[in-house]
Amino acid sequence: MLRGFLVSLLILPAFAATLPLMPMPQKVTAAAGAMKIDSTFRVATTGYSDARLEAAIKRFTTHLAQQTGQPPVPSPQSPAPSPRLLIQCENRAPDYPALNEDESYQLDVSPTGARLIAHTVTGVLRGLETFSQLVRPGPDGFEAPAVHIEDQPRFPWRGLMLDVARHWMPVAVVERNLNAMAAVKLNVFHWHLSDDQGFRVESKRYPKLQEDGSDGQFYTQAEVREVVAYARDRGIRVVPEFDIPGHTTAWFAGYPELASAPGPYRIERKWGVFRPTMDPTREETYVFLDGLIGEMAALFPDPFFHIGGDEVAGTQWRQSSSIQSFARAHGLSSNQALQAYFNRRVEKLLKKHGKTMVGWDEVLAGDLAPETVIQSWRGPASLAEAASKGYRSLLSFGYYLDHLEPASMAYANDPLAGAAATLNARQSARILGGEACMWTEYVSPETVDSRIWPTMAAIAERFWSAAAVRDVDSMYARLPIVSRWLEWTGLQHRANQILLERLTGGQPAGPLRVLADASEALGIDGRRGARAYSSLVPLNRFVDAVPPESELVRRLVEQLVGQALSPANPPTPELRETLSQWSGIESQLRPLAANDSFITELLPLAANLSMAGNIGLRALEFLDKSQAPPAGWVDEQNRELDRLEKPVAEVRLAAVRVVRRLLTQLKPQALANAGVRSGNEPPCNGPLTVPNWTSLARQPIITLKLQRSDSKTECL
Amino acid sequence: MLRGFLVSLLILPAFAATLPLMPMPQKVTAAAGAMKIDSTFRVATTGYSDARLEAAIKRFTTHLAQQTGQPPVPSPQSPAPSPRLLIQCENRAPDYPALNEDESYQLDVSPTGARLIAHTVTGVLRGLETFSQLVRPGPDGFEAPAVHIEDQPRFPWRGLMLDVARHWMPVAVVERNLNAMAAVKLNVFHWHLSDDQGFRVESKRYPKLQEDGSDGQFYTQAEVREVVAYARDRGIRVVPEFDIPGHTTAWFAGYPELASAPGPYRIERKWGVFRPTMDPTREETYVFLDGLIGEMAALFPDPFFHIGGDEVAGTQWRQSSSIQSFARAHGLSSNQALQAYFNRRVEKLLKKHGKTMVGWDEVLAGDLAPETVIQSWRGPASLAEAASKGYRSLLSFGYYLDHLEPASMAYANDPLAGAAATLNARQSARILGGEACMWTEYVSPETVDSRIWPTMAAIAERFWSAAAVRDVDSMYARLPIVSRWLEWTGLQHRANQILLERLTGGQPAGPLRVLADASEALGIDGRRGARAYSSLVPLNRFVDAVPPESELVRRLVEQLVGQALSPANPPTPELRETLSQWSGIESQLRPLAANDSFITELLPLAANLSMAGNIGLRALEFLDKSQAPPAGWVDEQNRELDRLEKPVAEVRLAAVRVVRRLLTQLKPQALANAGVRSGNEPPCNGPLTVPNWTSLARQPIITLKLQRSDSKTECL
Repeated sequence: MLRGFLVSLLILPAFAATLPLMPMPQKVTAAAGAMKIDSTFRVATTGYSDARLEAAIKRFTTHLAQQTGQPPVPSPQSPAPSPRLLIQCENRAPDYPALNEDESYQLDVSPTGARLIAHTVTGVLRGLETFSQLVRPGPDGFEAPAVHIEDQPRFPWRGLMLDVARHWMPVAVVERNLNAMAAVKLNVFHWHLSDDQGFRVESKRYPKLQEDGSDGQFYTQAEVREVVAYARDRGIRVVPEFDIPGHTTAWFAGYPELASAPGPYRIERKWGVFRPTMDPTREETYVFLDGLIGEMAALFPDPFFHIGGDEVAGTQWRQSSSIQSFARAHGLSSNQALQAYFNRRVEKLLKKHGKTMVGWDEVLAGDLAPETVIQSWRGPASLAEAASKGYRSLLSFGYYLDHLEPASMAYANDPLAGAAATLNARQSARILGGEACMWTEYVSPETVDSRIWPTMAAIAERFWSAAAVRDVDSMYARLPIVSRWLEWTGLQHRANQILLERLTGGQPAGPLRVLADASEALGIDGRRGARAYSSLVPLNRFVDAVPPESELVRRLVEQLVGQALSPANPPTPELRETLSQWSGIESQLRPLAANDSFITELLPLAANLSMAGNIGLRALEFLDKSQAPPAGWVDEQNRELDRLEKPVAEVRLAAVRVVRRLLTQLKPQALANAGVRSGNEPPCNGPLTVPNWTSLARQPIITLKLQRSDSKTECL
Repeated sequence: MLRGFLVSLLILPAFAATLPLMPMPQKVTAAAGAMKIDSTFRVATTGYSDARLEAAIKRFTTHLAQQTGQPPVPSPQSPAPSPRLLIQCENRAPDYPALNEDESYQLDVSPTGARLIAHTVTGVLRGLETFSQLVRPGPDGFEAPAVHIEDQPRFPWRGLMLDVARHWMPVAVVERNLNAMAAVKLNVFHWHLSDDQGFRVESKRYPKLQEDGSDGQFYTQAEVREVVAYARDRGIRVVPEFDIPGHTTAWFAGYPELASAPGPYRIERKWGVFRPTMDPTREETYVFLDGLIGEMAALFPDPFFHIGGDEVAGTQWRQSSSIQSFARAHGLSSNQALQAYFNRRVEKLLKKHGKTMVGWDEVLAGDLAPETVIQSWRGPASLAEAASKGYRSLLSFGYYLDHLEPASMAYANDPLAGAAATLNARQSARILGGEACMWTEYVSPETVDSRIWPTMAAIAERFWSAAAVRDVDSMYARLPIVSRWLEWTGLQHRANQILLERLTGGQPAGPLRVLADASEALGIDGRRGARAYSSLVPLNRFVDAVPPESELVRRLVEQLVGQALSPANPPTPELRETLSQWSGIESQLRPLAANDSFITELLPLAANLSMAGNIGLRALEFLDKSQAPPAGWVDEQNRELDRLEKPVAEVRLAAVRVVRRLLTQLKPQALANAGVRSGNEPPCNGPLTVPNWTSLARQPIITLKLQRSDSKTECL
C-alpha cells in the first residue's frame, strides 16, 4: 500500500548524503519531486492517538512554523488542506519511556502528501524530527523532498550527561537541551545532580542538603517533576545521579556527620578530586541514604538510579582509625574493598526502592547484582571487562564534551569498536549504547549549549545510525546545516555575538567576530593551568564566546582539499577575502583594546592571525603568478605557523590550518616530511580509525586523547 | 553630603556625550576615576523600601550579571563587599504608576562606591537603568565611570503603542518590549487591542468577541493582569485601546447586531480602511459597550481608556435609512456629527466606570469633557488645535515606526516644536508628551523588535531629555551602543542571523549577511503595493530580516565625512574591505540561489550591490593614485547609483550612500549641483529642523514624510 504512495522509486546511493539528516536513518530512498510546505500545511492522525501524540504534533507544527516563518493559516481559510502529513500510529508507548522500547518508524513523502507510520507514539516522535529536517527552501517556497525512509536505532541507550553541580544550570537551560536532544533522537538525560560543588535537588527529608549545599541554586521537587514530564513528552528518560561516596563535599556542608572525618565542611569552590568522603562504616550513613534514596526514587520514575562511585580519594578512610578497625574486622583489605562493601549496601537500598544501580567504572570492583549497569569513562577496556563479566554497560570514554575536541573525534568513537575484538555476540549485546558527558568546570549556562552542540548531533548519529555510517566528510557536510536547524529548538549554541559585544562595551564587534571565527576554545586540559579558576571566576572572556571547532576554517580547508590551485583554477573568493581580513585584523582590533582588558589580552592572538593571513596572501601571490617560492620559504613559513599555533588567551588559532593547507600547494612533497597536521580535518578521505587508546585518569585530571594510527601517513 | 562623595569635580561639557546614556540625563558631571564592578558588587538600601523596590533591585542585579557575565559571588564568600551601590529612597511610589508622578533621581558614582537618591521608588527605577548604562569594560575588568547625575523627565507621558490586532503579539513579545521600554525610561504602554483584524482580549461577558474575532489569538484576563503587573513593576502605565466605532469588523464576527449593516461578518484579512462601523443609533449598542467597558475598566487599572475613534468610513451610515432618519431626527447633519454623538455617549459610559477618555484626532470634533486627551496622528496642527481648545494632548505624528524611517527623523520631531509657535505657555503645558506607534501590517512577532528598536531609544530621549539635547551625531554615536545594551533586556531586534539562515536552508549565510548589512527594509509605503499582502501572507522574506536603518552604512559614511582622502590620508581598512565584499557579492550569492526562491529574488539586488562596490573601488583607485577621473565620470557614476538605489525585493540599497559620499571626494564642487542626498545622514552638523508638515491621511493609507527645509543647502 505504501509503495503506491511513491510516484517513482529511484535508488540513489548518493542521495541520502545530500539530505541534511542527522542521525542518518537506516534506509533512505529518493523519489521524484517534492511536497510543498506552506501555511496551509496540516497534520492529521489515523489509528491510535493520545494526549502525548497530540502534544507532539503541536510542538512539531510550532517548530515548523518557526523554521519556515509561516504561521498556520486559520482553519476556516483552508477547510480541506492538501497535501498534508498523515500520521498512522498503531499503539500507545509506555507511559514513561522504557529501555529497549520500539522507536521505529517509516516515513514517505511524495508531492501530494506524506505519511508517517509507527508502531508507537515514540516512533512518531522520532519520525516527526526526521520530517522537520527534510524541510528546506525550494524553487517555490519551502518544500520537503519526496523520499522513503525506514528507521530505527542501533543502540537503545543514547544519552547526554549534564553536570549541574560545578556550574548551576537553570531549568530553562535543561529544557532547551532536552528539546535539542529530542531533535536528534537521543533518549536518555543523565542528570549529574550532586558533587563537591553543589547539591542541586530539594530534599524535604534532609533540607540542609540544598540549604547549605547549593547557594540557593537547586531544583525544587516541582521543577524536577516538570523536567521529567518535559523529557517524557519527548521520549527521553531521566536518570538521576547522586555521586557517592566521594564527590560529596556539598552534602557535608549540611550533614558533616556523614563524612569520614570531622567537619565543618563548606561547599567546594575549586576544581579537582577532594578528600571528603562518606563514612561507609556507620549505620547512620545507610539510614540517611535509605531516606534520601527513598525520597528521590519517588521523584524520578526511571528504574535506573546512578550512584556515581568514581574517584574516591581514600585519604579520609586511611586516616580514620575507626574506619580502619572496621575494615580489619570485616576483612576489607583495601579502599577498593571498602567501596565495594559500600556499593553492596547501597545497592540493597536501591533494590528496596525499586531501582537498578548504575555506576561509573569504579563500582565494578565488587559483587554487584547482575542487572547493574556500568558506565565506562576510562576506556573500551573497562567497557569490555564489564560486558564480559555479564554487566550491561555504556561507553562515555571518548565522548567527553568538556575537552572541546572536534566532532570528528567523537564521531569516530564507536561503542562497539574497542570492545568488539574481545567480546562474543552475547557479550557485545550487553553494551547498551553510550552517553556524552558535559562536565562544567569551564562551562556556564551561557556557554553550555556551544560546548554540547553541534558535536552532540554527530554523537547522536553514532548512537542511532548504522555502524557503517561513518564517513567524516558526509558528517561535516551535514553538521553545519543541522547546527543551524537546531537553533529553532531554542538552543543558544551559535549566539555568541552578544558575548563578543559585551567585551567591546557595545562597540561594533566586527574584528572580534573575525578573530572568533578563526579561533577555537581550548578544552579542560588547556584551561586548567591558565589561571586560578574556581566556581567564583566568571566565564565571560573571549575563550568562552569561541566555539570548540571553527566552521569557517573547516570550510576553507575543504575548499583547498584536492584542488590544485593555479591561475586557471583560482582560489575561492571566500578564501581570498578571509585571508585579507585576517591580515588586517591586528590593526582593526587595536583601537578596541584601549582601556579594555578583555581585548588587550587578545592582541597577541590578533597579531598571530595577521601574520597567518599575511603568509596566506604571500602564498596566493606565488600561486597567482605560477611562481615557485624561494628555496626554504615554505619550510620557514611552516615553522612560523608552529609558533602562531601556540595557544593564546586559552584559544587555539584554527586559521593556521588553512594556511598550512595552502602551503602544501606550493610544496606538495613537503607534506610527508613536515609531520605537522591539524587535529581537525581528516587527512585522508577514508574513515578514521580509533586505536591506541591511552590509559587515562578521569576528569578533572583526565587527559583524553584519541590518537590517529595514520598520523604520519602521507595522503594528499 | 553628597558632594563630599565626589573625589574631584570636573566640569567636562564633552564628557556626557562620550557616555552611552540614552535618554541623556538633565545634568551629567564627570568626576575622577571609576568604580570597579566585579562579582562581589552589591546593592544596599537605606530609607524607604518595599517589595517593588526589592524586585527592581533583583532585576537590576540579574541584568548586571548578564551584561557583565559575572554572576554574584555567594554571600559568605564576600561578607562585606565594597564598593557598592547604596540606594536611598525617601518614599513609596503610587501603587499604580500615575501621570505626573515624581520620577526624578540623583546618581553619584565614585571609585569607592555609588549612591542613588530618589524621592520615590519610581525614581530609583529610572536611576538604576542609568547606572546599568554606565557599566563598561575597563583596564581592569568592568567598571562604572565616576559621575554626578541629576535627572528628571521633560514630559510626563512617554509612550509606545503596539498594535496586536493586525498581527498577534504573544505575551512574551509584549513583556520583552516592556522591559526595553523601562530600560529607556518610557512610562506608557498603549495597547491597541482591537481592530478589523482581531479582537485580542478575553471578555467573559461577551465571549464571542474573542471566540469569533481572534482565531484563538487573544490574551486571557489572567494574562492581561500579568502584563499590567509586569508593566507596573517597571513604572509603566498600561492604556488599553478598543477602537470604536470604526475598525470593528472583528467585533461583528461574533456580534453582527452591533454593525450598521446586516452581516454576516468575518475577521478581516486584508489591510486598509473598511466599511463595517458600529450603529450609533441603537440603544443596544450602548448597553453592549456599557457592559464591555465595565468589564475592561475593572481589568485595566489605568484611569485613561482609549476609544480610538479614527478613520470612520461613513459608508454604512450613509447607506442605512434608519441611521439617516435618526440623524435627521436628532439634528446630526453629518457623519462627523453622528460620531460626535457616539463619542459623547461613550464618554458618559467611561465616566460611569471611572475612566477618562483618550482618542485619536478625530474625536476632537464634538463637545468633549475637558479632561479628554487627544492623540494626534495627523500632525502638529491638530495637536495645537486640541491644546488651544483646552484639551491635553499627545503627539504621535512623526513617530510612526511602521514607516521604518531613520532614527534621525523621529529624533528631530519635538512634541512642542510644531505647536510652540501658536500656543501660549499654559496651552503648551497641555501637551503631555508623545507616543511612538507600531502598526503591524508588515510586522510579525519575529520582526517587531527590529521595527521598534533601537529607533525607540532615540524617541525616548526626545520625550525624556531636555529640548536642547538634539545633536544628531551625538545620538548616532550612542545609539549603536545602547542598541547592543538593549539586547540584555531580552529584545531580539539584532538577532536576524537565524532569519537569514532560514532562507539559505541552513547553508552558511555569509553573503546574505553582507547583503543585509548593506540594505534597509522599506516601510509600509514601499511594501503596500509590492505583493498581495494580507494577514495570511507570511513575513519570512529577506526584507523582514533586514533592519530599517543600516548601522554599517552610517558608520562608513561617518568615516568619510569631513575627511579628504589622499594617499597620505587613506580610507579606513573597513571601508576598503567592505567595498571589496560588496563588489564580490553577486558571485558569492549566486550559488545559494539555485532552487531557492527566497534567494533568487535577491539576485538583482546583489548585482546592484556588486556594481556599487565596483564604483567605490574605482573611486578608491583614483584617490590612491591622486588621479582625477575622466570628465563626466563622476556624474555618470552618480546616475548609475540613482538606478542602483531603486528598491528591489522591498529593500533599499543603503550602500549607495557610501559610494555617493566617496564620489564627492573626487568632485567636491559637484556636491551642490548633484542635488542628491541620502535620507539618512544629516548633511550638516547642526540639528535638523522639522518644518513644512505635509497634510496626511492616517495609516494604513498614510504617507508620512518629514521634509527637511535645508535639503537643498550645500554644507560640506
